[in-house]
Amino acid sequence: MVFTMERRETFSSAHRLHSLEMSDEENKKVYGKCNNPNGHGHNYVWRVILKGEVDSRTGMLYDLGALKKEMAEVLDIVDHKHLDKDVDYFRSVPSTSENVVRFLYESIKSRLSRPELLKECILHETEKNVFTYSE
Amino acid sequence: MVFTMERRETFSSAHRLHSLEMSDEENKKVYGKCNNPNGHGHNYVWRVILKGEVDSRTGMLYDLGALKKEMAEVLDIVDHKHLDKDVDYFRSVPSTSENVVRFLYESIKSRLSRPELLKECILHETEKNVFTYSE
Amino acid sequence: MVFTMERRETFSSAHRLHSLEMSDEENKKVYGKCNNPNGHGHNYVWRVILKGEVDSRTGMLYDLGALKKEMAEVLDIVDHKHLDKDVDYFRSVPSTSENVVRFLYESIKSRLSRPELLKECILHETEKNVFTYSE
Amino acid sequence: MVFTMERRETFSSAHRLHSLEMSDEENKKVYGKCNNPNGHGHNYVWRVILKGEVDSRTGMLYDLGALKKEMAEVLDIVDHKHLDKDVDYFRSVPSTSENVVRFLYESIKSRLSRPELLKECILHETEKNVFTYSE
Amino acid sequence: MVFTMERRETFSSAHRLHSLEMSDEENKKVYGKCNNPNGHGHNYVWRVILKGEVDSRTGMLYDLGALKKEMAEVLDIVDHKHLDKDVDYFRSVPSTSENVVRFLYESIKSRLSRPELLKECILHETEKNVFTYSE
Amino acid sequence: MVFTMERRETFSSAHRLHSLEMSDEENKKVYGKCNNPNGHGHNYVWRVILKGEVDSRTGMLYDLGALKKEMAEVLDIVDHKHLDKDVDYFRSVPSTSENVVRFLYESIKSRLSRPELLKECILHETEKNVFTYSE
Repeated sequence: MVFTMERRETFSSAHRLHSLEMSDEENKKVYGKCNNPNGHGHNYVWRVILKGEVDSRTGMLYDLGALKKEMAEVLDIVDHKHLDKDVDYFRSVPSTSENVVRFLYESIKSRLSRPELLKECILHETEKNVFTYSE
Repeated sequence: MVFTMERRETFSSAHRLHSLEMSDEENKKVYGKCNNPNGHGHNYVWRVILKGEVDSRTGMLYDLGALKKEMAEVLDIVDHKHLDKDVDYFRSVPSTSENVVRFLYESIKSRLSRPELLKECILHETEKNVFTYSE
Repeated sequence: MVFTMERRETFSSAHRLHSLEMSDEENKKVYGKCNNPNGHGHNYVWRVILKGEVDSRTGMLYDLGALKKEMAEVLDIVDHKHLDKDVDYFRSVPSTSENVVRFLYESIKSRLSRPELLKECILHETEKNVFTYSE
Repeated sequence: MVFTMERRETFSSAHRLHSLEMSDEENKKVYGKCNNPNGHGHNYVWRVILKGEVDSRTGMLYDLGALKKEMAEVLDIVDHKHLDKDVDYFRSVPSTSENVVRFLYESIKSRLSRPELLKECILHETEKNVFTYSE
Repeated sequence: MVFTMERRETFSSAHRLHSLEMSDEENKKVYGKCNNPNGHGHNYVWRVILKGEVDSRTGMLYDLGALKKEMAEVLDIVDHKHLDKDVDYFRSVPSTSENVVRFLYESIKSRLSRPELLKECILHETEKNVFTYSE
Repeated sequence: MVFTMERRETFSSAHRLHSLEMSDEENKKVYGKCNNPNGHGHNYVWRVILKGEVDSRTGMLYDLGALKKEMAEVLDIVDHKHLDKDVDYFRSVPSTSENVVRFLYESIKSRLSRPELLKECILHETEKNVFTYSE
């Protein structure tokens, strides 16, 4: 028997794709319009998936109220922010959705009371582009 | 080669989270507003996922018309009902989404003509909370 | 020049369609499965639409933060509740979506700092059934 | 007989709510987290609604291919841009959704071959906040 | 006081845009890829909107069960059909969404027990193209 | 560490379920209304999922711009077409969604610059029926 539970939240951030390891010309070629100097932004959808057994007494896999609070702490870091300018993590790595979903995964894992239950994080950058990260 | 097919249906039910194994105070603490004495309700989304090979003659994994009928039998048990009061299964276990998705899984499995194809069931309690169950 | 702004929220409630002005038999005939004695429930979507001019200084039609708080007060009355048993308004009138959307309209109007801006309320009972009310 | 046709497109932009007519303190109070100095961003949904009669020969209200091109010209101005820094219109007025939807309305109207058909523009800032503009 | 109620259904049809009043060349120019000789198809979303007063005894604007049956009769004509080849109405007029939504409007109006309540019909051809018709 | 990225596109096609290996009577029995002689159609949603490591320099799993072009080549084969009449693949096999998603998988795999990254394809035939294929 395997159960999973998932919680979805959204956040709205600005960012610009630009890698310090590439020339301006290469950045423009690799990232296209996402390299616009003044940046752009998204309404991101963030989904956290936990996997495990269910407590027979409560019938729950994890305390949803606790998960909301733990996710809220992470959302405070990214919501209504400029990822590159306001979040330390993205000073050294480009804020591609691959790196953003990894950041979210690591950020929620360190806050979960039972981090071993974390299965994966999913990030919708737009309705058409979706990214996942797991260990 | 692995194929899956999924069918989604919806149902609307009332329920209340309350465990017979906990005191009233503990129920209130664990379930919060979901423990409201008079209950609340949801439009649930139920997704059944089958996995297997495709019949080369029909090009189908499973007869979708048959699956619809089999799911309809299960929906008759829960749709426009109070889960705790109208469904026997939830007299002894709390109607958390974890337990509801398990009930749906077992209920559809016993009705499938080829139950070995059942991979998992997914239950959307709200747009933000999603649960899965598999063996 | 006419602007509108809309805010959407959701709430999860139980209810039962049953009119005190009709016999049990007539209730069953008129409301069908929605008359199930133990009730059922929905994830309702509630949309408030305001209409008016925009303040040239702030570029806003209405303070969205204030609207959120005003809607939250109304949501406290209906969310995770049994409409018929927990909300006084539905003791005398059946909790059809027509009556629910009217209740929401009147409840938010009395809380808005500028009630004359309220254009209409919209209520999604399910993905397939949508109701609106305006004066 | 009245027909309308609607075309939806999306774009992803950064912006910051900040009015030149208000002090820093007032900006922070009025706009809250939307006043974050480094900005934030959205996946906007833009809907253009045309209204009129249908050409009996073609059975169409307006040439959809032409509308796509006309909307694409406007999208080039805002998509993957910072509204405040990259779009002249928002140098003098704050980039609230009320002002953005008005800008989109005026921008598409000046490009339509039959501007008298334009009924309104709708802008979804997030899943929860929606704005319309019409004359 | 004005109430509206809306019911949404879906249907899946094939069609081809081709006007008998235009040459093959003109058809290709006007309709583009929608003029593909072998046709294409859509999952249409059909929304019927009724407008009127609410019966104080039942709390309802119209009998939803009756509306479902009346819409089902219309759906039988178009669902899993080729609009041009299987529906008489489209033998003489091109099956543009403008004409399809008008056909749906007229077809449901003639079946409603209170046709004066019909306000409009809405047709989603795709997620991006939406059409309405009213008298 | 495992990353996936997904790109979603849509296409609109006509088709008819009819197997050359079955009699007319059997086709009608197996496929029901999907066997309508003149066909029907869908707005399909096609999702391509890639799985692999992320390039630390670009922060990307795969070049999204390249994937869009590769998917566009496949979309040209099926979009605004009649699957059975316009696509060679479906001359010999019935155009069930199981076979369509397999065709899409094979078609995109042969176009990817790194085909080993392809994890699976997902096809939404309608909002209720979803199919996946992987090797």
